[in-house]
Amino acid sequence: MIVVLGGGPAGRIASIRLASAGKKVTLVEPKGKEQGIGGQCLHFGCMPVCALNDAARIAATTRRFYKRGMIDTLPAFRFGKLMDETYVVQQKISGILDDETRQAGVDVVYGKAGRVDGRQVFIGDEPVDCEAAIIATGSRPNIPAIPGVSLPGVYTPHTLWSLRELPKKIAIIGGSVMAAEFAYIFSEFGSEVTVLARSGFLKNLDRHLRAVAMKELSGVNIQEETEVAGIAGTDLTTGVRYRAAGTERAISADAVLLAAGLVPNSGMVTGIDKGPDGAIIVNDRMQTSVPGIYACGDVAGAPFLTPVARHEGIVAADNILGKERHMDYSRIPQAIYLAHELAFCGSSGEGSASIALPGPAGPGTYWSVQYGDTGLAKLFADPATGEIEGICAAGPSGGTVAAYLAFLMQREISVHEFEDFIEVHPSTDGIYGLAKYASEIFRKRDSS
Amino acid sequence: MIVVLGGGPAGRIASIRLASAGKKVTLVEPKGKEQGIGGQCLHFGCMPVCALNDAARIAATTRRFYKRGMIDTLPAFRFGKLMDETYVVQQKISGILDDETRQAGVDVVYGKAGRVDGRQVFIGDEPVDCEAAIIATGSRPNIPAIPGVSLPGVYTPHTLWSLRELPKKIAIIGGSVMAAEFAYIFSEFGSEVTVLARSGFLKNLDRHLRAVAMKELSGVNIQEETEVAGIAGTDLTTGVRYRAAGTERAISADAVLLAAGLVPNSGMVTGIDKGPDGAIIVNDRMQTSVPGIYACGDVAGAPFLTPVARHEGIVAADNILGKERHMDYSRIPQAIYLAHELAFCGSSGEGSASIALPGPAGPGTYWSVQYGDTGLAKLFADPATGEIEGICAAGPSGGTVAAYLAFLMQREISVHEFEDFIEVHPSTDGIYGLAKYASEIFRKRDSS
Repeated sequence: MIVVLGGGPAGRIASIRLASAGKKVTLVEPKGKEQGIGGQCLHFGCMPVCALNDAARIAATTRRFYKRGMIDTLPAFRFGKLMDETYVVQQKISGILDDETRQAGVDVVYGKAGRVDGRQVFIGDEPVDCEAAIIATGSRPNIPAIPGVSLPGVYTPHTLWSLRELPKKIAIIGGSVMAAEFAYIFSEFGSEVTVLARSGFLKNLDRHLRAVAMKELSGVNIQEETEVAGIAGTDLTTGVRYRAAGTERAISADAVLLAAGLVPNSGMVTGIDKGPDGAIIVNDRMQTSVPGIYACGDVAGAPFLTPVARHEGIVAADNILGKERHMDYSRIPQAIYLAHELAFCGSSGEGSASIALPGPAGPGTYWSVQYGDTGLAKLFADPATGEIEGICAAGPSGGTVAAYLAFLMQREISVHEFEDFIEVHPSTDGIYGLAKYASEIFRKRDSS
Repeated sequence: MIVVLGGGPAGRIASIRLASAGKKVTLVEPKGKEQGIGGQCLHFGCMPVCALNDAARIAATTRRFYKRGMIDTLPAFRFGKLMDETYVVQQKISGILDDETRQAGVDVVYGKAGRVDGRQVFIGDEPVDCEAAIIATGSRPNIPAIPGVSLPGVYTPHTLWSLRELPKKIAIIGGSVMAAEFAYIFSEFGSEVTVLARSGFLKNLDRHLRAVAMKELSGVNIQEETEVAGIAGTDLTTGVRYRAAGTERAISADAVLLAAGLVPNSGMVTGIDKGPDGAIIVNDRMQTSVPGIYACGDVAGAPFLTPVARHEGIVAADNILGKERHMDYSRIPQAIYLAHELAFCGSSGEGSASIALPGPAGPGTYWSVQYGDTGLAKLFADPATGEIEGICAAGPSGGTVAAYLAFLMQREISVHEFEDFIEVHPSTDGIYGLAKYASEIFRKRDSS
């Protein structure tokens, strides 16, 4: 038997892989089916953020249509109902994931905690014999040590889903992807949003892509290089005190969202090497310091992404099955979901050339032409070989484009091969066009 | 000098390619800048259809949100204003295309007709000396010989854009992509829509993909195997008489849209071989029967697609530049734009295996989960080699997915290579997942 702890993307996919290969697999998920299967991704992260983002984009688009007289009335979202319906869909997906996992032959045990001490695995308090185990217990929101974090009105991305009334003013503490995505959502629904970033806001993003983000968040008050002193309020949150540029400042807020990163859930693991943040240390086969014990997904540390967790789950499962397989983190496509999918993969190499252009007008951007916000396409390539080194794609299909480019970059695709690329029209993908253009420029230079 | 006749996708791209290579190029566009540059694609086809489709999807989504109580009021579109604004954006894009073409060094001549007689090229009535010429004069709507087609209220995809009031009842004559796309649009805006197809409706579409189309057009009255007898009305269109299943029938309609295909615009060409439909006959280097005279885009016949026209323009230009290049029509990705992009590429080969699944929940489909219409992912592959032979992808990014799969299929990609595919999450692309799944199934079968 193989024991898998945690029913999120990493553990669930690993379990299915193992069961499909004929192994007896027990998947232990301490939370019930309603909150457990699918992990943070389904219950607190990707999916409910997607739900609200889809709605926020409709809010943004209808506002523009209304301003231009194209629709006769401006609908307002009923926030409580939106949250209720988000949950309804989540539960439907929970059921689908539960079915799929069981149908693959996995024995799913809900409501019991798993624990690992060295080579010994426990389900509840019972020690179990297993040929291997996978720890995929995920992560939880980091709660910064700030006075007032326990006040009602202070939320994390885990507790936010109990909100049924749209905050009038919300302060978001954090400066990374989650902070940006929630800022877009609340801002489009009509909240007054302030983001308090400790250092820079989306500081590691490509500068052109960051400019797109800043434009799409132009309604948000973004404060960088801040130090939060405390959350104000006695019975309820009333605001946030912080320092910036050497001065003491305060903003009022009826809700505060802590979007200050994630912490690996490794408290139930002992006798196995961990890093300073609690992440279980693994090699690129997802093996821990103890033979036969694997870890994957968020509990094994950053980058805390669902596709990486899934892939790590596959790698762990395959190594258990005796198929040597290694995890490669060199070209992970990523996206930030705002008005567009702000996606990226790879980066500029030494001596690389880059070209950037606005995204094309097409499905989902036709009506953006008037506002000059059709997104972005940016390409980094080696002028000598034509090899593509990185891309940024902001548009309605940005994430899809980035994923296929990542796949092609793994295959060392060159811009010259894009000469034969035939698109579907209209398309909002600007990357293939840039690649064709770069090919022409590189060839012209080579022949002159 | 090289003369290019027609400023649509084929002629414009060919001109830019030639000018960028240092050639002196005159692009002759008989319509003014406002209606000419960009061709049918910008003025009558892809782009304005995209504009209305983007709006129709908002209509469909807000209707669902309203029914579920997620928004407080249901906006209605002001059709006249929508058409006005569609034109405003078109004009903006016209300007961009005109700039881009001139900046590449192309001499654009508006308002003069071109003509070709054998090897002799004319601009207006003036014969001109040129080293080569490209005929890219496009196509126009086919007007079937039906009594009443000249009545006010009868439109083609070219004249439709003068409509400023939403028809209460519209009859669409045709059974292919254009008919389907306009049916979706008018139906979502609230018209009562009847489609009269001569044979089958979307008859060549994969059956799973067609089922998606039928679901997305469930509000449309689709009549197949019909023969239109005439359009009723004296001063204005009042309906359509037709025969179906051996009986005479009639429907009332205040507007009729003729979506009965396209006819190549080759009237200005003599002394060059043409097919029975008037299409200029070309080889796979886009060379006509007369040396030095090339033809590309719709005037060279089906499939009447913008990306094909563009690519043919590149092929024509490169052959003029002495770079031998051949057009390959074997894997052209295509899409029908309804509630989703219903995209496809390639097809099932002999002995190929196929798998089909509903599309994933993600950006643009989260709220479709409740309605079971998250689209479709379907894959055809050779079980022996794993090579992908075709795909269908219905979803918000279907066209993008199909284009990249076409590109990968050109490279004879196998499902097994998708084992290393890392997506961006959430994503509405179901193809990579199917490929991974197919790889697992094929390998399991091989090892048993």
